[in-house]
Amino acid sequence: MTETTTARPVDASAPGNATTTWLADFEKALTTRDIDAAAGLFVDDCFWRDLVAFTWNIVTVEGPEGVRDMLGQTLDRVQPSGFVIAGELGEAGAETESWIKFETSVGRGIGHLRLRDGKAWTLLTTLDELKGHEEPKRDRRPTGTEHGAVPDRLTWLEQQRREAQELGYVTQPYVVVVGGGQGGVALGARLRQLGVPTIIVDRNPRPGDSWRNRYKSLTLHDPVWYDHLPYIDFPANWPVFSPKDKIADWLEMYSKVMELNYWGSTECKKASFDEKAKEWTVVVERDGVEITLRPKQLVLATGMSGKPSMPNIEGMDVFTGEQHHSSKHPGPDAYRGKKAVVIGSNNSAHDISAALWEVGADVTMVQRSSTHVARSDSLMELGLGALYSENAVAAGMTTQKADLTFASIPYRILHVFQIPVYDAIHERDADFYARLEKAGFMLDFGEDNSGLFMKYLRRGSGYYIDVGASELVANGAIKLESGVDVERLTENAVVLSNGKTLPADLVVYATGYGSMNGWAADLISQEVAAKVGKCWGLGSDTTKDPGPWEGELRNMWKPTQQEALWFHGGNLHQSRHYSLYLALQLKARMEGIPTPVYGLQKVHHTS
Amino acid sequence: MTETTTARPVDASAPGNATTTWLADFEKALTTRDIDAAAGLFVDDCFWRDLVAFTWNIVTVEGPEGVRDMLGQTLDRVQPSGFVIAGELGEAGAETESWIKFETSVGRGIGHLRLRDGKAWTLLTTLDELKGHEEPKRDRRPTGTEHGAVPDRLTWLEQQRREAQELGYVTQPYVVVVGGGQGGVALGARLRQLGVPTIIVDRNPRPGDSWRNRYKSLTLHDPVWYDHLPYIDFPANWPVFSPKDKIADWLEMYSKVMELNYWGSTECKKASFDEKAKEWTVVVERDGVEITLRPKQLVLATGMSGKPSMPNIEGMDVFTGEQHHSSKHPGPDAYRGKKAVVIGSNNSAHDISAALWEVGADVTMVQRSSTHVARSDSLMELGLGALYSENAVAAGMTTQKADLTFASIPYRILHVFQIPVYDAIHERDADFYARLEKAGFMLDFGEDNSGLFMKYLRRGSGYYIDVGASELVANGAIKLESGVDVERLTENAVVLSNGKTLPADLVVYATGYGSMNGWAADLISQEVAAKVGKCWGLGSDTTKDPGPWEGELRNMWKPTQQEALWFHGGNLHQSRHYSLYLALQLKARMEGIPTPVYGLQKVHHTS
Repeated sequence: MTETTTARPVDASAPGNATTTWLADFEKALTTRDIDAAAGLFVDDCFWRDLVAFTWNIVTVEGPEGVRDMLGQTLDRVQPSGFVIAGELGEAGAETESWIKFETSVGRGIGHLRLRDGKAWTLLTTLDELKGHEEPKRDRRPTGTEHGAVPDRLTWLEQQRREAQELGYVTQPYVVVVGGGQGGVALGARLRQLGVPTIIVDRNPRPGDSWRNRYKSLTLHDPVWYDHLPYIDFPANWPVFSPKDKIADWLEMYSKVMELNYWGSTECKKASFDEKAKEWTVVVERDGVEITLRPKQLVLATGMSGKPSMPNIEGMDVFTGEQHHSSKHPGPDAYRGKKAVVIGSNNSAHDISAALWEVGADVTMVQRSSTHVARSDSLMELGLGALYSENAVAAGMTTQKADLTFASIPYRILHVFQIPVYDAIHERDADFYARLEKAGFMLDFGEDNSGLFMKYLRRGSGYYIDVGASELVANGAIKLESGVDVERLTENAVVLSNGKTLPADLVVYATGYGSMNGWAADLISQEVAAKVGKCWGLGSDTTKDPGPWEGELRNMWKPTQQEALWFHGGNLHQSRHYSLYLALQLKARMEGIPTPVYGLQKVHHTS
Repeated sequence: MTETTTARPVDASAPGNATTTWLADFEKALTTRDIDAAAGLFVDDCFWRDLVAFTWNIVTVEGPEGVRDMLGQTLDRVQPSGFVIAGELGEAGAETESWIKFETSVGRGIGHLRLRDGKAWTLLTTLDELKGHEEPKRDRRPTGTEHGAVPDRLTWLEQQRREAQELGYVTQPYVVVVGGGQGGVALGARLRQLGVPTIIVDRNPRPGDSWRNRYKSLTLHDPVWYDHLPYIDFPANWPVFSPKDKIADWLEMYSKVMELNYWGSTECKKASFDEKAKEWTVVVERDGVEITLRPKQLVLATGMSGKPSMPNIEGMDVFTGEQHHSSKHPGPDAYRGKKAVVIGSNNSAHDISAALWEVGADVTMVQRSSTHVARSDSLMELGLGALYSENAVAAGMTTQKADLTFASIPYRILHVFQIPVYDAIHERDADFYARLEKAGFMLDFGEDNSGLFMKYLRRGSGYYIDVGASELVANGAIKLESGVDVERLTENAVVLSNGKTLPADLVVYATGYGSMNGWAADLISQEVAAKVGKCWGLGSDTTKDPGPWEGELRNMWKPTQQEALWFHGGNLHQSRHYSLYLALQLKARMEGIPTPVYGLQKVHHTS
């Protein structure tokens, strides 16, 4: 291992005693292949979340039965051992919580354990690195030059140029990643470090363009501590909320210094999998020239929100003003003094409406159904502060620990942890919410009052992180029509279901996105899209997230029903954290390490 | 302060007791303006090195008399207070050493104290930040967006573009930095953070080009831990020795994400200082268009090695082969099978000779005087390992602490610390040195056996960090003519003072560089160059570093005899560390904070 600190020594009198005992008992049960004994170390309502370490999958099993089933199918192969408290990670949140580490037959893992009455309540196990394939970092970092005399040596630059010339032409990449946003770039960086030949294709010329092309007032709604990419943290002077063009520059720089094979101005046109050759044929057009790539693995990193959803409204063809989906909205400058109607009431709708108001446009927001709103300050302080904030950093919280702490809470009970946060936000900002409701705005806090992040996980929509637009809604500066739908468009107006007619020069459809498997339909086939099914969502049986319960996000960062097809995406936090596990899955396959998948998800919904 | 941890509590029984007592006594003496009492707290052979905190200069005073003189001229203004052990920096190297912090009337400082028999032997005081002008980092970082409704707001991109359009045209920079290598870029980053409007001009198109344009086999000879720039560390996977094109890409990315006003393809043609208006007139040609800049401060960051020194040898005009200074050498590719003569035996001479040999050129190195050679591995382990290595990082050594530890040793006694290191290197690599000498190579370890770093500080030349070429010299692959000089060139050969004639297709003059004030002569005037005098060197009265003793590097990072003219440069370590003090000096002047300079250096040598 590259870690230089060592495991906390076992001391029966120390607070970690219960954990140490549990780990010893657990290891003994696993070593003797006594699955019943192992399952007996868990409480009845336990959860074991595994990120690739035991299952070559992202899976949460529940209850001793779940533990028994998982171990029954994986234990002989995984051969787990060496469970100890990971002293180098420091103290976990409470006395009953511990950071742990362990080994498997092929790798080294880290995890998190919560005990209740001496038994495991939640267990997280994650694969951190593959033995013999450790990343070249810290004391394994490359020398950068070969000392001594090397006839006809290639310099770093010559090697770079040769790779750029040959990969995709003379030699084939092992992985093709479609989409070069933060997801594709973070994954590409990890794959480069793992020595997996990869090409990232993106239709835009430069890394970061997917941000540059958005409406001009956009800034990240997540704070900087939540947004670090792997390997290179944002510096201490980076703004809390990155302006879109600044994060774009960072992604461009990052792609360069992490030495990614980033093919900009490249459109992926078609992909198909040869089940016999176990190989993809991916047709791309690079700077106008068609090239066929033959990777073994294909990753769609085209944005977790998938494809823009345009509504089909009567009269859209006769409307003579300008109309576009929010993803195509350029910003307000051309609409000074114009009449704008924004359909929708989530993040983009609010941002776009506010920016239009700021240049003096006449803006009406059309709210079709209730929306969750949380003020940015409150969310930062009450929602993220413990893990992702300057205070957390000052208290010793690292990005790795924050990510793993977050990952340690099973999705099944995550809402229980979230509800009190949003209750507190509700109370703290009661006046704010009252003013919004008085203006007619339809508010919700999620069906079970679990707030924004659960909505994000369940449906990826339905909320606004307030950075100022809500005040404009509350005071009427942004006009509001709520509880209505759009009935039709005329030549120059939007007609609502409440009978009102809104004259309009501009209509913005802030109507969200479809599932990522829509991209699979376009690029591969409708058949494959249906076979892999819907992406994202937990099966919580709430609005836009139909059951049954899945336990994990559908199809994200893990094997799908289509061999060698993967979906990668999410916010910067997820792109950073889950790219590790996706990269390790791809690396293991490239190296021929057996990767039998436990608990491959079933498909319940096709889109 | 932005630091979140607090000072170590005073505990009379703790090991820090002697330090705590000393600090209390020192503060009492300073507070009561009892200069004799303060001076009495130092041993007779003491050193007090001050980086800007007390002196608005970079100065080392010696002995209680030196302390008395410095305090006599600075104490009333500086009003130092709050001397405590800086617990947030952890333990210093030994029990008699401590990190300290303090305040002055205008800033906050950190320092380092070595006690001997309860009195101060070495004291380092450094200015860390100016009160009211703290950098916007960590908990002071910018928000990145103004929340709320802001009519006609400018986005980050619009602000960037406006600044790029206006600075140097509509508005004037406060500082112009000539030279955009690591020195200019590191300083530019600090000035940006301090809100000092700055333009960096460089004749090459892109940041990093000064590295890209060097011979192709070049890699940094200093390891990665020594090379970090301010604000953004190299990632954990960065090579130990950066290839030149990779460090170039990093500098280019760094300039972009640190938002520097970097004017590439811009040549500085002329500069003059108006003593009445206290303003420079700097004429530059940017992309072919002449522009006049009027900054208040001018920084020459044109490379601490200054201007290439070309020898004047009889017959250079009749030689029909190719000849160039090492700074213009492109690398070996065009010289496969050719006869090359490399004049010189320092770093560049060795690197270039080895690369030529690697492609099959016939290479002769002409060594005119003895050279210090240290093997890279030995230097890394014995010379730098304690402060700049993976082990040091693992043991908690930060870049800041390493830099300050290094800065805490006064130059006057630095050789005493260095001699044992090179004795150990000499012993460890005895066989290697014996083989080199057997091949006729003239070796030295510096006049007082203090080795490479002292040579670097005293004369900036005279050594080779061996990464493989020495073996080629030892085994005769690179032919050697030593103890000779070049007498003349003929049409196709180099004639040596020992009577030998070396047929040559290529002659490389690896003959070093002149003082940085040569740039001042070119850009400003010979008069100003003579007025400021020689840059670099300590006045050690060793070869190429004539006395008298200066105590600090001449003219570097501190006020010169020419008002508002500054020199910045050195290796990456120095560019990083000293850019802080230069930036604070410039910021203070911009803000109108009085900056009376104590101990402005006298000029003893003009070049």
